[in-house]
Amino acid sequence: MSYEEYTIEGRNAVIEAIRSGKPIDKLYVLDGCQDGPISTIKREAKKADAVIKYVTKERLDQMSTTGHHQGVIAQAAAYEYAEVDDILAVAKEKDEAPFVFILDGIEDPHNLGAIIRTANIVGAHGVIIPKNRAVGLTATVNRASAGALSFTKVAKVTNISKTIEDLKKEGLWFVCADMSGEVMYKQNLTGPIGLVIGNEGEGVSRLVKEKCDYITSIPMKGEIESLNASVAAGVLAYEILRQRMS
Amino acid sequence: MSYEEYTIEGRNAVIEAIRSGKPIDKLYVLDGCQDGPISTIKREAKKADAVIKYVTKERLDQMSTTGHHQGVIAQAAAYEYAEVDDILAVAKEKDEAPFVFILDGIEDPHNLGAIIRTANIVGAHGVIIPKNRAVGLTATVNRASAGALSFTKVAKVTNISKTIEDLKKEGLWFVCADMSGEVMYKQNLTGPIGLVIGNEGEGVSRLVKEKCDYITSIPMKGEIESLNASVAAGVLAYEILRQRMS
Repeated sequence: MSYEEYTIEGRNAVIEAIRSGKPIDKLYVLDGCQDGPISTIKREAKKADAVIKYVTKERLDQMSTTGHHQGVIAQAAAYEYAEVDDILAVAKEKDEAPFVFILDGIEDPHNLGAIIRTANIVGAHGVIIPKNRAVGLTATVNRASAGALSFTKVAKVTNISKTIEDLKKEGLWFVCADMSGEVMYKQNLTGPIGLVIGNEGEGVSRLVKEKCDYITSIPMKGEIESLNASVAAGVLAYEILRQRMS
Repeated sequence: MSYEEYTIEGRNAVIEAIRSGKPIDKLYVLDGCQDGPISTIKREAKKADAVIKYVTKERLDQMSTTGHHQGVIAQAAAYEYAEVDDILAVAKEKDEAPFVFILDGIEDPHNLGAIIRTANIVGAHGVIIPKNRAVGLTATVNRASAGALSFTKVAKVTNISKTIEDLKKEGLWFVCADMSGEVMYKQNLTGPIGLVIGNEGEGVSRLVKEKCDYITSIPMKGEIESLNASVAAGVLAYEILRQRMS
């Protein structure tokens, strides 16, 4: 996986980037802008599976570093995404039961980076993130990952629930972190496993939670009701590792 | 911990307060005022994460207690630091073996906030930070703590090593996280305990490490050599909690 950092501004630059096959995470387009070149860009972006967001001129001005966005800014992934199959292949290669992180909408790039770093360190085989409602592999994520992005595969999928179903057919079972679950120390977390971590504010979404085989909870003894998302991911991942090691 | 709000008036006083690291909640600036000193104040305030509000002269006059606001009033939030004895008193009050976090030079406010949040959630009785070489209780730390600053006592000490010695006399023993130590699952982490977490880049300093009774390590199975500091603190704290609970 190679590293390159960029946002791309201006019509020609954006269209060229998309056509060259650069992985575009998000395309920001001036709301109401309907002319020919913009329509072309939107069409190409859709073909390339990018998420399109319609924003105000003020937002674009804020995001722009060159001051010449011409109504369009593309955010390209700093890293190439892997496929889910690539992640399973890593587990197979190492002759280990698959251990995958599923991040259901992590929005903070520092959290995403820290979680990918943790995934690398606990020996997980990869991280799966959703296309929408989440941050992509930006330069900030790479920094926060302390370089883990160069080692740990990250796949981006359209539908987390469907990916969970597919992975169940491969023998994985899924545990999701939620206060309503049984305390993690009392659950068997060994075997081929997918650890599902929810969004910072809202936790794991209902549809994804319904797909999980078990709901597990981290014991809480204080006044505050939830850990930081990357800390929660670390605590759960290490409970999985502890059980795998013992 | 009591929460105290105070206002700082006048250009020099405000700029000094911001630069000294006082947590500024809001900065009130005379609307339309664009001169050099005001621009400097606004720039510094933005860096310090303060909210800037533009108000009329009448509003400033109303808020002013000195009558000499010079077009700028800052509202600071002061989180009072606790004393180390206050932390021990909490443990005694709850009739629990003391459980204290010692942070040897955490520099990132998001990490400090996340660690205080974790300390609250695992039921630790307080957090000790050094006066120098560390971030203080800024507004960013408070936000990252998700409100834990209102519940969990934080003491600031001049010399971490000396504080460790003092606390040993109170019956605490100290475990420090370092790759050279024995794996945490194999160590007895129960009883009155101080968990020592090092600086993000350099880990626990040599002098502090020498004061610790045990060095413990988090198992690492990937290419990256260390966890994010707040994740490491969470993983260790939960191993302590697991052993305390079982």
